Amino acid sequence: MMTSITKEEIHKLLNPMKLIGLGGNPQLNEKVANILGVPLLETTVHHFSDGEIQVNIAETVRGCDVFVIQSIQDPVNENFMELEIVLDALHRASAHTVNCVIPYLAYSRSDTKTRSREPITAKLIANLLQLTGIDHILTVDLHASQIQGFYNIPVDHLHAMPILAQYFLDNGIASKEDDDVVVVSPDHSGTKLARTFGQYFDAPIAIVDQRGARYDDSVHDIIGDVQGKKCIIVDDLIDTGTRLASSTRSVFAAGATKVYAAATHALLSQDATKILNGLPIEQIVVTDTVKHNKYPDRMVRISVDRLLAKGIDHIYNDRSIHEIFDEQNRFTKN
Amino acid sequence: MMTSITKEEIHKLLNPMKLIGLGGNPQLNEKVANILGVPLLETTVHHFSDGEIQVNIAETVRGCDVFVIQSIQDPVNENFMELEIVLDALHRASAHTVNCVIPYLAYSRSDTKTRSREPITAKLIANLLQLTGIDHILTVDLHASQIQGFYNIPVDHLHAMPILAQYFLDNGIASKEDDDVVVVSPDHSGTKLARTFGQYFDAPIAIVDQRGARYDDSVHDIIGDVQGKKCIIVDDLIDTGTRLASSTRSVFAAGATKVYAAATHALLSQDATKILNGLPIEQIVVTDTVKHNKYPDRMVRISVDRLLAKGIDHIYNDRSIHEIFDEQNRFTKN
Amino acid sequence: MMTSITKEEIHKLLNPMKLIGLGGNPQLNEKVANILGVPLLETTVHHFSDGEIQVNIAETVRGCDVFVIQSIQDPVNENFMELEIVLDALHRASAHTVNCVIPYLAYSRSDTKTRSREPITAKLIANLLQLTGIDHILTVDLHASQIQGFYNIPVDHLHAMPILAQYFLDNGIASKEDDDVVVVSPDHSGTKLARTFGQYFDAPIAIVDQRGARYDDSVHDIIGDVQGKKCIIVDDLIDTGTRLASSTRSVFAAGATKVYAAATHALLSQDATKILNGLPIEQIVVTDTVKHNKYPDRMVRISVDRLLAKGIDHIYNDRSIHEIFDEQNRFTKN
Amino acid sequence: MMTSITKEEIHKLLNPMKLIGLGGNPQLNEKVANILGVPLLETTVHHFSDGEIQVNIAETVRGCDVFVIQSIQDPVNENFMELEIVLDALHRASAHTVNCVIPYLAYSRSDTKTRSREPITAKLIANLLQLTGIDHILTVDLHASQIQGFYNIPVDHLHAMPILAQYFLDNGIASKEDDDVVVVSPDHSGTKLARTFGQYFDAPIAIVDQRGARYDDSVHDIIGDVQGKKCIIVDDLIDTGTRLASSTRSVFAAGATKVYAAATHALLSQDATKILNGLPIEQIVVTDTVKHNKYPDRMVRISVDRLLAKGIDHIYNDRSIHEIFDEQNRFTKN
Amino acid sequence: MMTSITKEEIHKLLNPMKLIGLGGNPQLNEKVANILGVPLLETTVHHFSDGEIQVNIAETVRGCDVFVIQSIQDPVNENFMELEIVLDALHRASAHTVNCVIPYLAYSRSDTKTRSREPITAKLIANLLQLTGIDHILTVDLHASQIQGFYNIPVDHLHAMPILAQYFLDNGIASKEDDDVVVVSPDHSGTKLARTFGQYFDAPIAIVDQRGARYDDSVHDIIGDVQGKKCIIVDDLIDTGTRLASSTRSVFAAGATKVYAAATHALLSQDATKILNGLPIEQIVVTDTVKHNKYPDRMVRISVDRLLAKGIDHIYNDRSIHEIFDEQNRFTKN
Amino acid sequence: MMTSITKEEIHKLLNPMKLIGLGGNPQLNEKVANILGVPLLETTVHHFSDGEIQVNIAETVRGCDVFVIQSIQDPVNENFMELEIVLDALHRASAHTVNCVIPYLAYSRSDTKTRSREPITAKLIANLLQLTGIDHILTVDLHASQIQGFYNIPVDHLHAMPILAQYFLDNGIASKEDDDVVVVSPDHSGTKLARTFGQYFDAPIAIVDQRGARYDDSVHDIIGDVQGKKCIIVDDLIDTGTRLASSTRSVFAAGATKVYAAATHALLSQDATKILNGLPIEQIVVTDTVKHNKYPDRMVRISVDRLLAKGIDHIYNDRSIHEIFDEQNRFTKN
Repeated sequence: MMTSITKEEIHKLLNPMKLIGLGGNPQLNEKVANILGVPLLETTVHHFSDGEIQVNIAETVRGCDVFVIQSIQDPVNENFMELEIVLDALHRASAHTVNCVIPYLAYSRSDTKTRSREPITAKLIANLLQLTGIDHILTVDLHASQIQGFYNIPVDHLHAMPILAQYFLDNGIASKEDDDVVVVSPDHSGTKLARTFGQYFDAPIAIVDQRGARYDDSVHDIIGDVQGKKCIIVDDLIDTGTRLASSTRSVFAAGATKVYAAATHALLSQDATKILNGLPIEQIVVTDTVKHNKYPDRMVRISVDRLLAKGIDHIYNDRSIHEIFDEQNRFTKN
Repeated sequence: MMTSITKEEIHKLLNPMKLIGLGGNPQLNEKVANILGVPLLETTVHHFSDGEIQVNIAETVRGCDVFVIQSIQDPVNENFMELEIVLDALHRASAHTVNCVIPYLAYSRSDTKTRSREPITAKLIANLLQLTGIDHILTVDLHASQIQGFYNIPVDHLHAMPILAQYFLDNGIASKEDDDVVVVSPDHSGTKLARTFGQYFDAPIAIVDQRGARYDDSVHDIIGDVQGKKCIIVDDLIDTGTRLASSTRSVFAAGATKVYAAATHALLSQDATKILNGLPIEQIVVTDTVKHNKYPDRMVRISVDRLLAKGIDHIYNDRSIHEIFDEQNRFTKN
Repeated sequence: MMTSITKEEIHKLLNPMKLIGLGGNPQLNEKVANILGVPLLETTVHHFSDGEIQVNIAETVRGCDVFVIQSIQDPVNENFMELEIVLDALHRASAHTVNCVIPYLAYSRSDTKTRSREPITAKLIANLLQLTGIDHILTVDLHASQIQGFYNIPVDHLHAMPILAQYFLDNGIASKEDDDVVVVSPDHSGTKLARTFGQYFDAPIAIVDQRGARYDDSVHDIIGDVQGKKCIIVDDLIDTGTRLASSTRSVFAAGATKVYAAATHALLSQDATKILNGLPIEQIVVTDTVKHNKYPDRMVRISVDRLLAKGIDHIYNDRSIHEIFDEQNRFTKN
Repeated sequence: MMTSITKEEIHKLLNPMKLIGLGGNPQLNEKVANILGVPLLETTVHHFSDGEIQVNIAETVRGCDVFVIQSIQDPVNENFMELEIVLDALHRASAHTVNCVIPYLAYSRSDTKTRSREPITAKLIANLLQLTGIDHILTVDLHASQIQGFYNIPVDHLHAMPILAQYFLDNGIASKEDDDVVVVSPDHSGTKLARTFGQYFDAPIAIVDQRGARYDDSVHDIIGDVQGKKCIIVDDLIDTGTRLASSTRSVFAAGATKVYAAATHALLSQDATKILNGLPIEQIVVTDTVKHNKYPDRMVRISVDRLLAKGIDHIYNDRSIHEIFDEQNRFTKN
Repeated sequence: MMTSITKEEIHKLLNPMKLIGLGGNPQLNEKVANILGVPLLETTVHHFSDGEIQVNIAETVRGCDVFVIQSIQDPVNENFMELEIVLDALHRASAHTVNCVIPYLAYSRSDTKTRSREPITAKLIANLLQLTGIDHILTVDLHASQIQGFYNIPVDHLHAMPILAQYFLDNGIASKEDDDVVVVSPDHSGTKLARTFGQYFDAPIAIVDQRGARYDDSVHDIIGDVQGKKCIIVDDLIDTGTRLASSTRSVFAAGATKVYAAATHALLSQDATKILNGLPIEQIVVTDTVKHNKYPDRMVRISVDRLLAKGIDHIYNDRSIHEIFDEQNRFTKN
Repeated sequence: MMTSITKEEIHKLLNPMKLIGLGGNPQLNEKVANILGVPLLETTVHHFSDGEIQVNIAETVRGCDVFVIQSIQDPVNENFMELEIVLDALHRASAHTVNCVIPYLAYSRSDTKTRSREPITAKLIANLLQLTGIDHILTVDLHASQIQGFYNIPVDHLHAMPILAQYFLDNGIASKEDDDVVVVSPDHSGTKLARTFGQYFDAPIAIVDQRGARYDDSVHDIIGDVQGKKCIIVDDLIDTGTRLASSTRSVFAAGATKVYAAATHALLSQDATKILNGLPIEQIVVTDTVKHNKYPDRMVRISVDRLLAKGIDHIYNDRSIHEIFDEQNRFTKN
């Protein structure tokens, strides 16, 4: 046997990797492509004046392993249909595999029926995405990990929390040696996330007890002790900012000395920027899974570009996604 | 046996009809509901500031035959996802049957691959709609009748052309006795539609021969004779208005004396209103499958409300849709 | 029209209700059948000496709406396959609808991939159940409400928590007037459930902070204040009892005066009975979704029989399941 | 990396190409196989005396990319079932991919419901073909290009019109320099095809206006001008020949000087040969997608063998089908 | 409650029964319709000269329970496609349920892979039939009862053997009192059928031992004793007659005194009639599941009309098919 | 082209073979792995105290061709669910292909509906196995070969009968030269198997005629002649041993001199060992598809290890399974 040819080389010849970046978050697409050293395939996506979307892919994808990167961010439905139409085109164009890279997957909060006659839109999205026969989904910090189970295909679920934690460690804001850090969950559902995030700093957790009321301006009770502490409010996403606002007010009322926030997805809808600018928070640390034209003051955006590029590379080359987690843990452990 | 109870009464008891009207074209929904004498079921559709849609249906639909009316008009993707989400909700809420009434079904022009690596979006839409297990589709004048074959469920396809023809007959614009009427197809694909429309007036047809060029401002040759004739340019839809504009110019250049236009779906995208207002057309006769806030001058809108109501009634009561066509034909024949 | 015949009467003639009770929890099956006034259909389920299961249904089910009651409790895989085989038989025997009533649905904790190369068994179960074309699932207190989204068919999800809360109210253990009650979640994931349960008593909540360690004998920190309080530890299920044991020890260590426990599903596996008997808990209030031959001391079992019977009746008669929730709320509110 | 091994070589080792030719049009199968230099795999197809078909494939196809060539021509249902049965056999025999090459795909005219309670047989055929899990369809000149959308798998649709046009160019019958050529559509639906065909000669088009009547012996009006012209009547197929007969009569009546015909599929059913022999047509130029034992006088058959071989080669080697079109266009442009 | 209206009356109002008889065996269709008192719905099935089939159903089937009767006999593929096309039409025409009544289901002998790369055509047929969403299949004496398991829908499998046995009882040919009757299986696979048939006469069985050779003219050994006995050779079908011929010769060679034959399906392909006419058999008793223009001498055809009518009636009225078996058994027991 | 690299080498690089052995029959798993020279992948399968199964696969399977070996033997439902859960895990872990190797496939006797309202459990099992998208099934001696048709995926069906026959040949118990050997089928259904087995020794067959009675202690008639003969009773499986017991008694009563038994699957349920030990049988020759802790006296177990290893190797390397049969035949022919 000739040992000089490797699996990677054969694979590259048989099924070359092609990257398509759609319109949700083009800067992130570019960054990921640069890290991978694979150019984004020229793709024309035209939104017509009558509201329809037309797509044309400039070069052949026959026999290729195609990765389509699309952040399903606002305008959510436009971006989602753009993705669906491209998937249909790729399928009919005889791509070898079609893989969706979705930095932010909208509708993930609609993951259960809270009232009668509600849809479960996160499941609907899962069914619609799987309809065209895609092979993999790669995404970042789903609102609930159960959403993986909405799919029958492999969903590789990357975690941005280690990246956010690393920022706090690197900038000396929090560390395992600190005694005065408390990680705060803004509501009851987020307790587990707070606990996970707290482990990077050996920090205790506290919970904002939003009894009855939903995220309004009120000041709520705090379960746990934040008196005289530096609080990091952690959440999977920041939408309108009102939940972060009431949480900030509540921890200050309970005696906190300083407040930071950390979240993976910065949706920043409605008046979020104005609300966040008005809050006495030191820093709001988020990732770039969602793109905006303008960001609130004191918002720090850390890119998930290397994380996604690594995910794509591991899927393409049949390497375990688990190795990425291990690497992250080694990183944040030092 | 008791003869005093009828099929209709039993059906109404077992599976009451419920109507849901979504946001694409609310006036038409109301009209249809009024004719049927069935109130629109209270349904909250909320488009959130982060771009997501949330739906709540106010009363139980268990065991009901639900008809959802939604025109998939601009904003096409918003309206389409609104419909999909409601279908998911109805399915999970144990409706007995779910039937979609779609006065205008967008993306129908993407019914074939004209270039490599194009999607067939009309088929994608068909697959997405069928995903949630709907029972029937009722629609009006599909761009190509083959689109019925994109579905595995029954698609009842209503024709608005008899209604438009009737307008010309009723208003003395054209009749079987007239010798000076020519029905004109604005391109080669529409010849068959022109022929069908011409039969209401025993009129010959002509075709605008858009060789090479696509619908621009040029004046094209006419196949057939329009010299000294009253022309009715007929099309399934009017989008940006440029195709109608060049067709009008072309028939006048070829000696037409007067021009009318007839089309089922008035999309009126981009500068359509301005373009149409600038054309020397007598009247532009369309239906109300698509709603706008403002319409061009000399546009006559004829409602398909009774047509849709009849379609819903026939489906609900297991009566042949064919009877509607027969009735239309009797009507337009006198 | 004859008004003397009702929907319920027609339905009963066309598609009579048939009940099948399988072997997981026969006492509960009997109770539900008694409340509904519909006898359990004679069904022979034979577990052969070679390990196979054989099923025979004694009377015709053609055209009937069949409800199969099976608790997927230990032996889980035997009970699950028993259900699957009966579903296949009913489907081939031309039942009109087949509805699964599953008081306890095993594998619900395997609802996400926590490590690489893990299955999502709750989703596998969902796919297997849906394979034979069932129409509805009726179940009680799923481990995560997202599991509804694992299904494409309607899942009616009943809540036993109001029944448990009612017991505490009825027996004067806790009330909205009490100031000394704290509802305790035994881990971070259960905070939301604790908050919901606390609302019946206007009680604050606390969380057992099982950092790093998983449910062992250790005494953990408590987030929130239980000093001098009567604690109700609430969970969706009690499996081996070790989590409840360490939680009990932890709240006593943090100054609690009295401890109660409440949980929907009492799995009581391994040495659970011995462990629970050794705990200084006043009462352990559970439901009868899972059957055992013997129960721990001080365990109070409240039946979900009326809840399930109501669920079946509402599904059969196309009445909103929501009405059951409303009724429960009215009940517990007084 | 070793550059001396190519993708083509690896692919050939891993998944060798195998060709199966079924009984619809064996001569064409042989021609295609010869061009590809791949022998037809020995396959026994036995039509038993009781009407059943039995199939045996002589050598292993495990891991192979199999291309099955079958013209679904008369006897249509026998040929179609022969194909289906072979597809089932290949699927169960673990072929790597199964690709159908269908020079003529019957039932394509049943692509829409023209009357109530009609089937859409072209869609039924699509569903039946896709049932066994085939990977690709390669076909020639579908009756309506929308039929591609009846499939969820890639349909590569080759065009024989450039080959037919080339014949007219090569034999000096028509050219871009000629002024006296008119391309004629025999009915309203074919106008677009006539326009496409006309572009090869920069020729105007005309339409036979079969009002009311369907293809009988009558002489119909002509839309457009054929007076003193050489007419090429173009259609996708010639079935019984009556449509071509009435069209020929009509263009002569309107003053045509000479008539030629061009069509992709020569079905020649019923008395077609006799009818065509009686027509004053110079030449009838068709392809060999359909095989007969005997052909009308003045019929010129041009083979699609190289076109199909190229299509198979491009699919097998992951090359764009588009390149074939480009090549055709270059060819016919000179 | 009004007791004067019955389930049957309501069902008849809601979902009237409609019968469609296709071209395989029209006499049997007529007989079944007469017994049911329901006229065959007017259906035009046109086999075109180009080999395609066109179907038109004359009246509405919306909301009806339609039973389509088609014997899949020679020409097998034509009859099968005729059925498929009608099923597609009924599905698109919104029938409430579609039920296939198939007196003879061809390809049932292709129920297993006997050699490599063989299809399992009986399974392919099952998949194709189920594709259009039919509700039930009613058939008679499948070649192997396992074929029921090829379907995921209910297959009601009627037995004609009791009818055949009854003929022998009624005509004094064989009875439980006779000592000289032996039931003979013509090959090893049919032993179980012979045993079942023998029970009607308390008769022993014997087997023609076709070692190595397959059904040719040879005389084979007999397992079991036929010396001086009246033999009834029983099989599920008679195809070319050669198997019956060699079996007859073999039992005579082994000392049989008289030979009768019984079989459900008389395919009579190739030279069967000639072969059978040449055999010294007293009577060949078959059913009318397959129609011919001419039958062999001494062939007695007993109709399955009442059996099929009963099957249809039981399915339509939700009565157990088992009752038919019970009735048959009572009948043949006396 | 470089000829030094082979298909096998490329395949091994791209999609390495991985073997997983589950808990049904671990010794056989080990043997197969040893012959293939591929270690069993470390897989933890935990049966929890609450009855649930948890699975963890120790190393990555991305891009691998995985073969899972599991004998679905007693405890049947545990072993089956274990397999299902591993299949789900492998699918989500992005295995390239997943292949099930099932030495003994339980429930194969439930392959038909023998009474009303029975399931067809063998089909249910087929549907459940195919649900997770497996690629191949490799199994040994199915109860009925029709079960292959229950699957839409390739089922490679290996035969252990040649191995058993070889034992009789090798040990001089029976040969083609012997005149005194009779192969006996214990019931009517097994006649064909007896005939096949008899061919290895050119032996006649006889059948135990279990009229009316089912496998009890009675002595039954024998069809065929066993007087003074050495009988080999052959069956596909030995379950409780009662059928073998009554058959042995019956052939002795009919004059047999010596009795042997041969069967592929030794289930040995209930009191089988005791029953078999009490029978005057010389030897009971079976395979090791089913594992027990203890075996009856005079039972000879011949391993199917090489047969399964060969099957796996042929599937992995795209070699015809047919070659294995040919090899077997050559072997037993000498």
